[in-house]
Amino acid sequence: MQYKAEIHVTLKRTVNDPQGLAIRGGLHSLGYETVETVRAGKFIEVWLEAESSEEAERQAEQMSDQLLANPVIEDYTVSVTEASNAI
Amino acid sequence: MQYKAEIHVTLKRTVNDPQGLAIRGGLHSLGYETVETVRAGKFIEVWLEAESSEEAERQAEQMSDQLLANPVIEDYTVSVTEASNAI
Repeated sequence: MQYKAEIHVTLKRTVNDPQGLAIRGGLHSLGYETVETVRAGKFIEVWLEAESSEEAERQAEQMSDQLLANPVIEDYTVSVTEASNAI
Repeated sequence: MQYKAEIHVTLKRTVNDPQGLAIRGGLHSLGYETVETVRAGKFIEVWLEAESSEEAERQAEQMSDQLLANPVIEDYTVSVTEASNAI
């Protein structure tokens, strides 16, 4: 069965986020004065073959630990759905 | 009222994604042979003041059009929720 894992990688709340600050600055320059905070993260979609949804989720979490996220400064969340076919 | 807009920016399906290909290569090297496709995108969280959820969503869409996404090669989705306080 093919599954799609959606992985959000975000900086831990205590870690400084220069990209988010730069985006906030840009939005303020464009007139969006009501913007208070911006945090920038990554969104990674992985299509994979697995025997079950649980197995796909376990693999996606392992991938995040090993490659996709830096556990020292980043958090991640994994959400798995069935996928009819890859793009 | 304070709202949090979650914005996903992804490359259009027809656009080549070198970052996604590099991640797929890395995952294969680590032994994740079942991975078929990887797409890499951005996940941007924006905390903003607005009078209603609809107004917050309208603003977040405008920000995406103007700054956060490149409409030539990227798609985006916006999802707004009430936020008790910024981080």
